[in-house]
Amino acid sequence: MKRRDLFKGGALAFLGGALISPYDTIAGLAPKQKLGKTAKNIIFLVSDGMSLGTLNLASMLLERKNGKTSNWLSLYQQQGKVTRALMETASANSLVTDSAAASSSWGGGVRVPNGSLNVNADGSENMPIWQKFKKAGKSAGVVTSVMATHATPAGFCVNSKKRSDEAGIAKKYLELGIDVVMGGGLENFDAKLRKDKQDVFADYTKKGYAVCKDRQSLLAHTGVKQPVLGIFYEDALPYAIDRASEKELAEKVPTLAEMTKQAIATLSQNKNGFVLQVEGGKVDWAAHANDTPAALYDQIAFDEAIAVAIEFAEKNRDTLVVVTTDHGNSNPGLYYGSKADKNFDRLQKFKYSNNWVLNGIGKSTSASQLIERIEFAQGYAIKEEDAKAILKHYEKLDEEGLYNPYKLPYKQYAQIQSEYTSVGWGGIQHTADYVELAMFGPGSELLKPFVKNIELHNLMLEATGVMV
Amino acid sequence: MKRRDLFKGGALAFLGGALISPYDTIAGLAPKQKLGKTAKNIIFLVSDGMSLGTLNLASMLLERKNGKTSNWLSLYQQQGKVTRALMETASANSLVTDSAAASSSWGGGVRVPNGSLNVNADGSENMPIWQKFKKAGKSAGVVTSVMATHATPAGFCVNSKKRSDEAGIAKKYLELGIDVVMGGGLENFDAKLRKDKQDVFADYTKKGYAVCKDRQSLLAHTGVKQPVLGIFYEDALPYAIDRASEKELAEKVPTLAEMTKQAIATLSQNKNGFVLQVEGGKVDWAAHANDTPAALYDQIAFDEAIAVAIEFAEKNRDTLVVVTTDHGNSNPGLYYGSKADKNFDRLQKFKYSNNWVLNGIGKSTSASQLIERIEFAQGYAIKEEDAKAILKHYEKLDEEGLYNPYKLPYKQYAQIQSEYTSVGWGGIQHTADYVELAMFGPGSELLKPFVKNIELHNLMLEATGVMV
Repeated sequence: MKRRDLFKGGALAFLGGALISPYDTIAGLAPKQKLGKTAKNIIFLVSDGMSLGTLNLASMLLERKNGKTSNWLSLYQQQGKVTRALMETASANSLVTDSAAASSSWGGGVRVPNGSLNVNADGSENMPIWQKFKKAGKSAGVVTSVMATHATPAGFCVNSKKRSDEAGIAKKYLELGIDVVMGGGLENFDAKLRKDKQDVFADYTKKGYAVCKDRQSLLAHTGVKQPVLGIFYEDALPYAIDRASEKELAEKVPTLAEMTKQAIATLSQNKNGFVLQVEGGKVDWAAHANDTPAALYDQIAFDEAIAVAIEFAEKNRDTLVVVTTDHGNSNPGLYYGSKADKNFDRLQKFKYSNNWVLNGIGKSTSASQLIERIEFAQGYAIKEEDAKAILKHYEKLDEEGLYNPYKLPYKQYAQIQSEYTSVGWGGIQHTADYVELAMFGPGSELLKPFVKNIELHNLMLEATGVMV
Repeated sequence: MKRRDLFKGGALAFLGGALISPYDTIAGLAPKQKLGKTAKNIIFLVSDGMSLGTLNLASMLLERKNGKTSNWLSLYQQQGKVTRALMETASANSLVTDSAAASSSWGGGVRVPNGSLNVNADGSENMPIWQKFKKAGKSAGVVTSVMATHATPAGFCVNSKKRSDEAGIAKKYLELGIDVVMGGGLENFDAKLRKDKQDVFADYTKKGYAVCKDRQSLLAHTGVKQPVLGIFYEDALPYAIDRASEKELAEKVPTLAEMTKQAIATLSQNKNGFVLQVEGGKVDWAAHANDTPAALYDQIAFDEAIAVAIEFAEKNRDTLVVVTTDHGNSNPGLYYGSKADKNFDRLQKFKYSNNWVLNGIGKSTSASQLIERIEFAQGYAIKEEDAKAILKHYEKLDEEGLYNPYKLPYKQYAQIQSEYTSVGWGGIQHTADYVELAMFGPGSELLKPFVKNIELHNLMLEATGVMV
C-alpha cells in the first residue's frame, strides 16, 4: 500500500481531496513554485506566543522604518507563493494551550495535557516527530532564543511528563542524537551550574559533537558534517533589542538568523535530508511581560530567520518551510487616537526593552534617575508621578525580589508606556486565538484553510513520504 | 481595449498574474466551485470592528454549544471553497481607521481621512461603488444592525465630509435610489424625531418604496420588485442577545439574517444583478464597551447572515460573496487559567448583554439587587465589594448620565466579568490589526493573500466586469 493511499479516509481523512496541488499541473501559473512530489527537508519556524497583533505591529514597524514589510508578510504579496491557514491551538485539557502541549500536538500528533511533552494523561507516550525523521535517516535539529531544552524544541524531540525537567532533556537530546541543538541554557549543560554537577558538555564532546559557547565559534563551524551543540547564555538568550545595543552581548551571542543559517549548513550535509525547528521563544516571554519593544524586536529577529529559511528553500526546492506560532499571548494592538501613528513611530528608536529598564532599578533609584533611564533607553520622559508609582513597587521587594523578573512591575510599566506608544495589551497570558500559519514548498498544497495543531504532524510525514 | 487588459500593469497591477484561477482549469479539484468568468451579484458582509479574537470566541462558543463551528470558519474546512486574505486597514491619516474611512476605502477605492465618507482631505470626492453599480444597471442595497445611515453602509453609497450627517444621508439614499435600505435609525427618517421635522418616510413612499417599520411587515414583503426602506428602531437595533431574550423586541425587530434574506429576495428581481452590503454593526459597539456577551452573540447573528448569503451564492453561481471586517477593536481573547474552559462555557447561558445589565441600574439600586440582576442575566454572582464598586460609579452620575450609555461603567464591569468568563480585552478602541477576509464565488480568484483595504474596490469592479 502506498503511503498516500494509506492516509485516504483514515486518520488523515482531512487530506482527502487535497492531494493534487493546483500548482503541480498548471504550467506557468506560479513558475517559481514548481514543486517536487515530496519534501526532503523541513524547516519549521515558530514565533512562540505570537498573537496576530504581534505580527501586525512588527510588520508595520518595519514598513514605516525601512519601507518594506516583514519577510513573513512579503511571502503573501505574491499570489500562489505560500499556502496559508488559521490554526486552532487547544491542548488536551484546555482551549488555551501552553507551549509544551502545543509543541507536542505537532511533535506527537496527539493533544496532551498542558505541561506535558508527548505524554498523555494516562501516562502513555507518543513518538516525537524528530525521532521519526531520525529513524528515516534524516538529520534533526532545534534552534531557539530561549533555553535549548525549553518546551517548544523539546516537544519535537522527547517524551517527558514535565516540561520543567530541562536538565533531563539536555541528556535526552544526546541519547537521541539530535544533530543540532542551539540556544540558551548553560544551566542545563554546565557541570558548575547543574544541580547534579554532571558535565553534560563533556558528554556531547565525547559523542563527537562540536560544542560552541559563543558566536565566533559558531560562525567558524560551517560546512562540516559534525553534530553541533551551541549554548550561548545562562538561561534564555537576551532580547534582540538589548543584544543589538550592547556590544558585548552582540559579540558573544549569535542572532536567531545566524543560528538558523549555521544549523542549516550543518544539517544539509546529510544527503537523506534534514528537519529543523527554529523558535523565536522570547516573543512569548515578552508578551507575558507586555514588553512591547522586546516583543516587536524579537519578532523581527524571528523574521530574519524566516528569510534564511526561505533563501535556502528557494534554492533547494525539496524543502518545506512552515512558519507559524503555537498560541496567542496577550493580544497586543495599536490603538486608535490622534497620536497613534506618531506614538507608534517612537518604537523605531527604542534602544532597550522594558526588561532592561526595570532590571536596572534598585531601592536607591530616584524618580529623576528613572525618568532619565527611560529617556535614554526608549526616548520619552514619563511623568514624575508615574516614575514614583513604579519605584513604589520596588520598595515592597526584598533583595531576592529585586533580581526576580517575575516580581518586577512589567504590567504597570506597560500601562504607562502605552501612553507613549499607543500599544495596548489584553492580559499577561496565553490566549485561545486562532493563529496564522504559512507554508512554502512541497507539502504546502496539503494545507487546509483551517486546521487543528495536531494535523501538522501527519502533514509533515505525508509531505516527506516518511512512514514510521 | 478589454477591461481585463486595461488593468494590467496600471493602477491594478496588483492583479497581474492572478487572472487565471487554478480552479477554473483543474477538472474535479473543487467541482462545486466551478466559477463563471464574471460575477453578476456581490454580497459584501462586514462584521464591524471584529478583531480575530471576536471571530475566535464566537466560533468556539458555537462549537462547544452546538458541536459545530461558525459558518464563517466552516467555509474554511473545505479546501478550495474560499479564498482568504489578511487585509491592512489604514485610513488616509492614520494606521488605525474609523468605520467611515474604512468603508470609503472599499467604497471609493481611495483612503480618506477618518470621519469622512468618500471625501478627500482636499475636498475632492470619490464616486462610491454602489453608485457605479447602479449606473451599470444593477440594484444596490445596504442592511445593518446599526443605523441604516451609519458609516459602513453610507461609505458604499454617498459622499459626505462628515459621517455624522446621518439626517442628510437618509435623504441622499433616496436621491440615489438605493433599492434596499434596512437597519435602525428612526431618528433620521421620522418627522417627529428629525431636527428639521421633515417626513423622510413619506418622501420614500412617494418615490415608490415599501416602508417597513416592524419585522412582520418586512417578512410579508417578499418577491416583489419594489424598493424597500426598513427602519426598525430609534437608533441602532438592540443587541442580538437582548433581542432573543425579550419577546417584544423579537417580534418587532428582524434579525440581521432575516433582513439579509429579504434584501436578497428584493434585489435579485433585477435581471442585471445586484450588490448588497450587510453589516453586523453592533459587534463594533460591543467591542468598544468590552461587552463580551453582546459582541459574541452579535457576531453569531452576523454569522447567520453569512449562511443566508452563501446559500444564495451556492444556488446562484454568478454571485461573489465577501466576508470580512473593517478593523480590529479591543482585541479580545480567552485567557489561560485553570478555569478558562469552564468560565468560557458560562457564556453559552447568558441571557442579556452587559449593556442591558448596566442600563438597568439606578441611584436606588442596592448591591444585593445588582448581584441578583447579574445572576439573572448572566448566571453568576459577583462579590459584594465589586457590586459596590460599580454602584459607586452611578453615585457620581447626574440624571442625564444615567441614561447616557457613554457614561456607564462598561470597562469596569468587563474587568469584573473577566473573572467569570476568562475573556480579556486590550482597550476600548479600534486597532490597526490586519483582519480576516474571505471570498466565495467568481472574482475570489483575484484575491491576493495580503491586501490593502482599497484594493477591494477595483477587485469588485473587475470581478463584475463593470466599467465606470
